[in-house]
Amino acid sequence: MAGNSFGQLFRITTFGESHGVAVGVVIDGCPSGLNLSEKDVQVELDRRRPGQSDIVTPRDEKDRVQIYSGVFDGCTTGAPIMMMVFNENVRSQDYEKMKDLFRPSHADFTYQMKYGMRDYRGGGRSSARETLARVAAGAVAKKFLKSKGIEFLSFVEQVGNVAADIDYREVTMKDVEASEVRCPDSKAAKKMIDLIKKVRAGGDTIGGVIFGFVRGVPVGLGDPVFDKLHADFGKAMLSINAVKGFEIGSGFAGTLMQGSEHNDPFVVRGGKVHTSKNDSGGVLGGISNGEDIYFRVAFKPVATIMMEQKTVDVRGKSAKIRAFGRHDACVLPRAVPSVDSMAALVIMDHYLRASVR
Amino acid sequence: MAGNSFGQLFRITTFGESHGVAVGVVIDGCPSGLNLSEKDVQVELDRRRPGQSDIVTPRDEKDRVQIYSGVFDGCTTGAPIMMMVFNENVRSQDYEKMKDLFRPSHADFTYQMKYGMRDYRGGGRSSARETLARVAAGAVAKKFLKSKGIEFLSFVEQVGNVAADIDYREVTMKDVEASEVRCPDSKAAKKMIDLIKKVRAGGDTIGGVIFGFVRGVPVGLGDPVFDKLHADFGKAMLSINAVKGFEIGSGFAGTLMQGSEHNDPFVVRGGKVHTSKNDSGGVLGGISNGEDIYFRVAFKPVATIMMEQKTVDVRGKSAKIRAFGRHDACVLPRAVPSVDSMAALVIMDHYLRASVR
Amino acid sequence: MAGNSFGQLFRITTFGESHGVAVGVVIDGCPSGLNLSEKDVQVELDRRRPGQSDIVTPRDEKDRVQIYSGVFDGCTTGAPIMMMVFNENVRSQDYEKMKDLFRPSHADFTYQMKYGMRDYRGGGRSSARETLARVAAGAVAKKFLKSKGIEFLSFVEQVGNVAADIDYREVTMKDVEASEVRCPDSKAAKKMIDLIKKVRAGGDTIGGVIFGFVRGVPVGLGDPVFDKLHADFGKAMLSINAVKGFEIGSGFAGTLMQGSEHNDPFVVRGGKVHTSKNDSGGVLGGISNGEDIYFRVAFKPVATIMMEQKTVDVRGKSAKIRAFGRHDACVLPRAVPSVDSMAALVIMDHYLRASVR
Amino acid sequence: MAGNSFGQLFRITTFGESHGVAVGVVIDGCPSGLNLSEKDVQVELDRRRPGQSDIVTPRDEKDRVQIYSGVFDGCTTGAPIMMMVFNENVRSQDYEKMKDLFRPSHADFTYQMKYGMRDYRGGGRSSARETLARVAAGAVAKKFLKSKGIEFLSFVEQVGNVAADIDYREVTMKDVEASEVRCPDSKAAKKMIDLIKKVRAGGDTIGGVIFGFVRGVPVGLGDPVFDKLHADFGKAMLSINAVKGFEIGSGFAGTLMQGSEHNDPFVVRGGKVHTSKNDSGGVLGGISNGEDIYFRVAFKPVATIMMEQKTVDVRGKSAKIRAFGRHDACVLPRAVPSVDSMAALVIMDHYLRASVR
Repeated sequence: MAGNSFGQLFRITTFGESHGVAVGVVIDGCPSGLNLSEKDVQVELDRRRPGQSDIVTPRDEKDRVQIYSGVFDGCTTGAPIMMMVFNENVRSQDYEKMKDLFRPSHADFTYQMKYGMRDYRGGGRSSARETLARVAAGAVAKKFLKSKGIEFLSFVEQVGNVAADIDYREVTMKDVEASEVRCPDSKAAKKMIDLIKKVRAGGDTIGGVIFGFVRGVPVGLGDPVFDKLHADFGKAMLSINAVKGFEIGSGFAGTLMQGSEHNDPFVVRGGKVHTSKNDSGGVLGGISNGEDIYFRVAFKPVATIMMEQKTVDVRGKSAKIRAFGRHDACVLPRAVPSVDSMAALVIMDHYLRASVR
Repeated sequence: MAGNSFGQLFRITTFGESHGVAVGVVIDGCPSGLNLSEKDVQVELDRRRPGQSDIVTPRDEKDRVQIYSGVFDGCTTGAPIMMMVFNENVRSQDYEKMKDLFRPSHADFTYQMKYGMRDYRGGGRSSARETLARVAAGAVAKKFLKSKGIEFLSFVEQVGNVAADIDYREVTMKDVEASEVRCPDSKAAKKMIDLIKKVRAGGDTIGGVIFGFVRGVPVGLGDPVFDKLHADFGKAMLSINAVKGFEIGSGFAGTLMQGSEHNDPFVVRGGKVHTSKNDSGGVLGGISNGEDIYFRVAFKPVATIMMEQKTVDVRGKSAKIRAFGRHDACVLPRAVPSVDSMAALVIMDHYLRASVR
Repeated sequence: MAGNSFGQLFRITTFGESHGVAVGVVIDGCPSGLNLSEKDVQVELDRRRPGQSDIVTPRDEKDRVQIYSGVFDGCTTGAPIMMMVFNENVRSQDYEKMKDLFRPSHADFTYQMKYGMRDYRGGGRSSARETLARVAAGAVAKKFLKSKGIEFLSFVEQVGNVAADIDYREVTMKDVEASEVRCPDSKAAKKMIDLIKKVRAGGDTIGGVIFGFVRGVPVGLGDPVFDKLHADFGKAMLSINAVKGFEIGSGFAGTLMQGSEHNDPFVVRGGKVHTSKNDSGGVLGGISNGEDIYFRVAFKPVATIMMEQKTVDVRGKSAKIRAFGRHDACVLPRAVPSVDSMAALVIMDHYLRASVR
Repeated sequence: MAGNSFGQLFRITTFGESHGVAVGVVIDGCPSGLNLSEKDVQVELDRRRPGQSDIVTPRDEKDRVQIYSGVFDGCTTGAPIMMMVFNENVRSQDYEKMKDLFRPSHADFTYQMKYGMRDYRGGGRSSARETLARVAAGAVAKKFLKSKGIEFLSFVEQVGNVAADIDYREVTMKDVEASEVRCPDSKAAKKMIDLIKKVRAGGDTIGGVIFGFVRGVPVGLGDPVFDKLHADFGKAMLSINAVKGFEIGSGFAGTLMQGSEHNDPFVVRGGKVHTSKNDSGGVLGGISNGEDIYFRVAFKPVATIMMEQKTVDVRGKSAKIRAFGRHDACVLPRAVPSVDSMAALVIMDHYLRASVR
């Protein structure tokens, strides 16, 4: 109810602050009998961790995950799985100077007003470091779902005005990981990296779009009326830090079309019912139709810029602020695993829900 | 869990099929002491009802609502409020002919696969007639929140390629209701009406965008981490039939910006902390900051077109289908009350959640 | 959250007041494909209805149920099932006289304080008439579970100091229904009836115990840690009006035993693992072990007595009250279907939960 | 959904196995601004810990708790609070010998059947060691509620056939802690200790009853219809290991009474409305009426006895088992903090729920 849990049957609860002792997650509802080790989780955390390349924040966190419960003899038992990462490379003194100031376009002001106080160190609970816990939980969901033939992939489609030109259906994990910006179109990737570096050199930041998709989803996931599969995707994505928009299938572009153009006749291919062109993005009436699910997620530019900005302090007086700390000039490369983890958490939950009979 | 409920503390559960006996809603969690009569609800249902103008479906439903519980002496008691509308102008024979066919871009196929059967009459539970129940519940939420100074308004911003040119901050309910297409820009409204009529004459349908906003939201609504206010808005809007996209504040356009341009310095105006330009759309870190909340909702064109289409039947054989029934060529004018009702349901729930201490 | 829903996957929400328009229930999560008609539900409501015999309240309600949604062609569709009964034989004038008085041991005082007002007619929402909705939902659960070989039965084991002497394992529905007091021990039944009539003649009321049991429960229902099967049974039973105690298996009597006496060795019978004597009442570690589940539910005497009592009015002044209205001198005969309906709702929910994989 | 969470607005999720790495809890929904340190929690854990006296299990666990999140500058922030205790004095080899055997009256069989495997070391997740996490969370709830004038106390009322003779209204925490058996009637306490020692000497175990109560509860906590305050108490208590029964107020004894005897006239005392004798145990219609809440909880004898018992192994063959490990001959002294912690968790949740408006 206080908003730190996600999912109904595969339910995660995350905890921990950016500069606190640790960040972690409890999964309640993971089926028993899944082989699981820290290695399965670490590989995903490594894709998200700070300091992984020269276009991301230099905060140097190893982000070593440990499993504290729910796994016995290398196998999930059906009991809650708690996983946690200790915070190590913390420089809270950077934040002491700003503790009475509201950073523009950050959560400082709203947290202070809502809770009457806030853990100002690194943004505390509002920091994107919390997504680490989602990626850890997502790794478990992905492992389970992989055994059911379901795969998740996301990539950076756009940074500022540089857009990739690529058919998602041909993209592999290797393509995504080929560049540090996680754009599988190598030409665009190079431009994106140049743009990020240029923006960062100016002390500025830049937004962009992540394209996500899911292959191998069976027909029948998602629940009418409110828990439509794409509605849960939307909520999942919009809950990621800095996200301001979501669209599935034809999305906003589809609003320009007429029904005769947009409609997607059913056809039989290989003995199975398919749609002709999948404009709906794999979901009809809120329920998966067996086609690929694909969607776009809009990220605003990072709010922390290395320039002086006007603001207000906790006493309501005008002030100036200049950011300290180590930050990403563009969050998208590191947000890619968050996007496909959230997708995995939604599918995992609905996979279990659809198994009820 | 089966997806027919929305909200945590102001929790609605809807029921009923398009051509069944009735459509209704139970609200659990409405505070006691709110003056409420059927009139309060009817006025909103009248904005949504079929047959209200010559650009919407001619299905002639009076949609008279009755309150069955939870109100005593004209006042809510804190007990569940059940409200229901009987279906009257039903022509199920139109659907008998199509009962073995999957209408393209409809929910027929996925419902059939998920449930092993379906109520094919008028789309059954997947029909947008279900939104009637949301509008009824939304009317209660709106009445409660109005007394707290919170107001909801939505309008049609775009139909096909015709877009309104208007500043939402100047829009009133009267402006919205001035045209049957519910676009407050009268020039654009005229073009939209012409476009809808033209499209309809061709047996086709058209999509568009609804712009929604909320005025008077106090600081502090919304919960980190997963239940961010805009994440719940996203889910709410994406759960409306035909919606394929959602953006708040700068949305997808903001992805092109740099942080120095997008960031929104805090300023003090009238003794209160405000943001300078509200690019974030009234939400920071998932929590309302006291500015207007505004957002856009993308609707695909209606799937039911009056043309022959290819499809597949329930036995997996290729077939042709030609729609019968009475339908909207453009759902947006009638979807406006659904959008602001869902907004009201989200705010109502978080208003109560924020009152917990 | 406001307490009018029960269950997670088979989730019911009840609504309606004793003297309001109607009392009903929405079931969300009923599997599709169950044959269901009003007759299936009516038979259970008839066991609960007022006026059924000369030892229960003479309020003459036919309690005719109608299904408003979720059933198509005689079969559940997976959509919410709404069922409702109109209130007919209402004599609210009996309550007008008492509207400013708090009836002792009733909910008048606490409702008034919690909600700032109350529907005083017949106790409004706090009336046991609400259990009608549970019995209707329970009928659906029972029908589904019967097809899985699971059966529910309850009977009156004790009224005041008259106790049945009978082995529950030999009891059939016919035995229960053989007497109007629903005690399958015919000698005890006669004494109970005499006691109830005597008590009623004196304007008084009497409490008692209902014994409930479930046959054919598969191994594996119930969830550690908080949602132990018997914990959910306890909550379910204690939520029934007038219930003050619950015990499963050896219950309070088991507290006197030593482990060597109480422990229940596993044995193999008919190729299956069983316990020797089922002291645990069919549940081990919160999970069903395949043995019969059996439990006892304690009911206090009905609070409405036909004698003058001291009390306080809504202005906090001392007053006298003499009950009007038509009431049961002993609720147990009519509470029997409520007990086995609540048992069915708990098992149904956990049956679906256990199917998740 | 998988049963490891409790509460709606003050929601706890526990994790960890008896012989795993650690046992802990996440609290989501704790209000911000509560002063909280590990000391506040440790004092309660010390009352529950093994090895605290010579009538409890000699497993020597220090049970040192650490807070990992949600507290900043000695104060809760509104973020999730994670607390954890590492397992130290683990002797899993005792369990290796029993890993293929189902201990009678334990959860081994049902866990094995439900999950297809189990963590057999110390009972894994089914161990009462899990209650440590509840006591930690309860300590936070108690601290918050103490500032609202609400206090929780429980004591051992009965061990086997030795019962205390004491008026709970005169009992203080000091009285409870005066004896290692936590019975405030010193004469009975002595007899209980003797009985426990005698039973233990014989390799056997013994059951009993804990009496719990709450002082200072405001009027208005609890929700109709299903979430009646005492129904949630019942579920809370029945979820504690070894509990088989629960009664509130007059409980089972009240079933013998007539209404005229049981009813509890309202009176005005000190300007406030009270009941005359509180037979209902502080709850009317499921809502607190401002009187003391009091209740009894029945514990069966511990299932682990130091005698040879018949059983069945995982392959379904008859076998003999003799327990190893270090165990309590009577759990009641150490279960006292679990009982009042669960009471505190119920009241805390409903306290927050009642603040919603």
